[in-house]
Amino acid sequence: MDLKGLRINSKRLRNSLEEMATIGATPNGGVQRLALSDEDKKARDLFVKWLKELDMGITIDDMGNIFGNRPGRNDSLSPVMSGSHIDSQPKGGRFDGILGVMGTLEALRTLHENKVVTERPIIIADWTNEEGSRFAPAMLGSGVWSGTLDRDWVYDRTDNNDKRFEDELTRIGYKGSEPSGKWPVHAYYEYHIEQGPVLEKEGKIIGAPKGILCLHWYDVYLEGEANQVGPTPMEGRHDALCAAAEMILKMNELPQRMGGDLVATVGEIQNYPNSRNIIPDKVHFTVDIRSWDDSHVLKAWELLRRDFDEIAGRRGCPIRIEETWQVRHASFDERLVKGILGIAKETGYSSLYMVSGAGHDASYMNRICPTAMIFVPSIGGRSHVEVENTRWEDCEAGANVLLQAILQSANEK
Amino acid sequence: MDLKGLRINSKRLRNSLEEMATIGATPNGGVQRLALSDEDKKARDLFVKWLKELDMGITIDDMGNIFGNRPGRNDSLSPVMSGSHIDSQPKGGRFDGILGVMGTLEALRTLHENKVVTERPIIIADWTNEEGSRFAPAMLGSGVWSGTLDRDWVYDRTDNNDKRFEDELTRIGYKGSEPSGKWPVHAYYEYHIEQGPVLEKEGKIIGAPKGILCLHWYDVYLEGEANQVGPTPMEGRHDALCAAAEMILKMNELPQRMGGDLVATVGEIQNYPNSRNIIPDKVHFTVDIRSWDDSHVLKAWELLRRDFDEIAGRRGCPIRIEETWQVRHASFDERLVKGILGIAKETGYSSLYMVSGAGHDASYMNRICPTAMIFVPSIGGRSHVEVENTRWEDCEAGANVLLQAILQSANEK
Repeated sequence: MDLKGLRINSKRLRNSLEEMATIGATPNGGVQRLALSDEDKKARDLFVKWLKELDMGITIDDMGNIFGNRPGRNDSLSPVMSGSHIDSQPKGGRFDGILGVMGTLEALRTLHENKVVTERPIIIADWTNEEGSRFAPAMLGSGVWSGTLDRDWVYDRTDNNDKRFEDELTRIGYKGSEPSGKWPVHAYYEYHIEQGPVLEKEGKIIGAPKGILCLHWYDVYLEGEANQVGPTPMEGRHDALCAAAEMILKMNELPQRMGGDLVATVGEIQNYPNSRNIIPDKVHFTVDIRSWDDSHVLKAWELLRRDFDEIAGRRGCPIRIEETWQVRHASFDERLVKGILGIAKETGYSSLYMVSGAGHDASYMNRICPTAMIFVPSIGGRSHVEVENTRWEDCEAGANVLLQAILQSANEK
Repeated sequence: MDLKGLRINSKRLRNSLEEMATIGATPNGGVQRLALSDEDKKARDLFVKWLKELDMGITIDDMGNIFGNRPGRNDSLSPVMSGSHIDSQPKGGRFDGILGVMGTLEALRTLHENKVVTERPIIIADWTNEEGSRFAPAMLGSGVWSGTLDRDWVYDRTDNNDKRFEDELTRIGYKGSEPSGKWPVHAYYEYHIEQGPVLEKEGKIIGAPKGILCLHWYDVYLEGEANQVGPTPMEGRHDALCAAAEMILKMNELPQRMGGDLVATVGEIQNYPNSRNIIPDKVHFTVDIRSWDDSHVLKAWELLRRDFDEIAGRRGCPIRIEETWQVRHASFDERLVKGILGIAKETGYSSLYMVSGAGHDASYMNRICPTAMIFVPSIGGRSHVEVENTRWEDCEAGANVLLQAILQSANEK
């Protein structure tokens, strides 16, 4: 059999994606499938049903990670793994995460119907709570499995309604008996939409990121002095929102000041008492800085932090900063990344060697085994929004490259 | 009887203020007595009970305004009115509004126990919904009574829980049968805390404002483009929060740019989707500008609006602006204001000719009759906060000046 000529069934892939998109569908064409919600459970149930149709061995660990095992010719060899996540952002899109799970499923279905037996076993994975928008931080399932995060610490994470991670995991029936923990892995692949505009701008179909940018999260808390706005002269005011506004602009100018290669964003702000005729006396905002170069971010943060202190001092608004989360940049396995570029060429798809700005489960997997990702274009670069979209031909292309990459690694002795 | 030597009972005034402060008391020493809430009803009931103890004629109009009528020697003469409001900000203070109602009540109690009969009748007033923090805009009771606002329009105002003004007025039992509407008034006095730092800074006890600053409220709506922050380059972003931050600083610099005599504040901001790893695509914020000079504000707004348009255009964030509320400055009656300064001198209190930065029911009353206000110092200039405070001696001083002002006007034939 000509394994190199094997292609996935694009119609079946599309059908699976469309059926998944009905679970948690939002009015404007997106999905809301928050981790450990009823929608997450429903999508998991469907995924497990589909795995059973392929006669796979199914394991659910005590983090709720779902693994489907397709035996190889020699099961003493370490497996090839491929997967992503089923959970979504609030009002997220129909491709983020689920494309990598359905793409892997489609590759396995193709192997199944063609009765292909590989040397090594192949494991498909759905990682719990990749988004981190219900339970912060992100990538909790792969974090515990890879040995980076502590399971009991994760169990105690709570959402905005004070629901505990473990309780919600139990509630939806996905707290498995198997302790979550890594095993030797020959290669890990994750297929994902780019979530940025680069592939579209360059007119390429397949992206092979050399790795994932580092990520630094900070939380800034400012205090001011509340007062009736009318009778309080401008001089002597301690307006926490004005201080925050100055800081937001400093942060916005930071990438240019550092000579590029950096993105910096304030996505979230809370203002108190938030009444139109009272001077704000409390502001909280977040800072997200990313770059390929970890030390570049630390240098940038040092500058920014000095600016923040100066602004806070000048405006008489005491500042408190929390360093919420730091993930070092992940350099993917060079051999696997080159392999993906080679497969793209062989299968006739244009490709681009690039970086990933978004975090993925692949970043934790990269710490324990050779890892690579496959990107396809996001229309208009839009993601984490309901209008997130990717052309069906591109979904097909990525799944074909994934199929060939899995085959190649799974047949290595 | 030496009417000029008549003084209020400061202990009784303090007791009344302290009893009122138990209704809607907050943990940090303030009060929350939102208009037409259960707490407002409870405070109104207590006020009406106290009016009855003075044998006053009580009228409640269909706006819920409460009037207590103390007959004069000649009831064909137009009355002297004095009052303020019982409602408070959310987490407001124990003096804002209620001091003017309790101060007038104390003046009437003093006249009552001394069996003083004045030429003209005296009417004490509690105006409904002065704060505007539950039902916007502010000063609805005096607005309808003075003929400035339409009653049915006010009835349809809703709070954040979509409760209608009229329904809530009926619910608490304060929709009276009397149609709300003005009658001829000889003089209107309103006794209030300053809500600013000027009296304290100048070391004066009694403030006699020449009038109230004009007030302009605007609502600004910005649109941006949401995206995952990591993979989206800085260039080409349309970050609505960065656009808002620039506008907030422009607004903050406006008073200095206009050469003073102006205060400008952004008190409220909403950011969407308000997630730390998504670029903000929608921001709403408020602008509050005040000055003695209406045309000065209009000129300032014109400049600011041009800046806003430039910022919105440069950042690719479409802008929409609503002109929410405009109140022209109110110039109080010169004779009454001078009268208050004179009384302060006679009674031995230091005084200051000043302006009021905050809006008051006096501003609508000023449109229909000779009006003046009496201010006493706010400790640290703090107001609309739980720590709002005024020294008991100053509360007493203001009530004594009010008593003498009422007496003087009520004995004019």
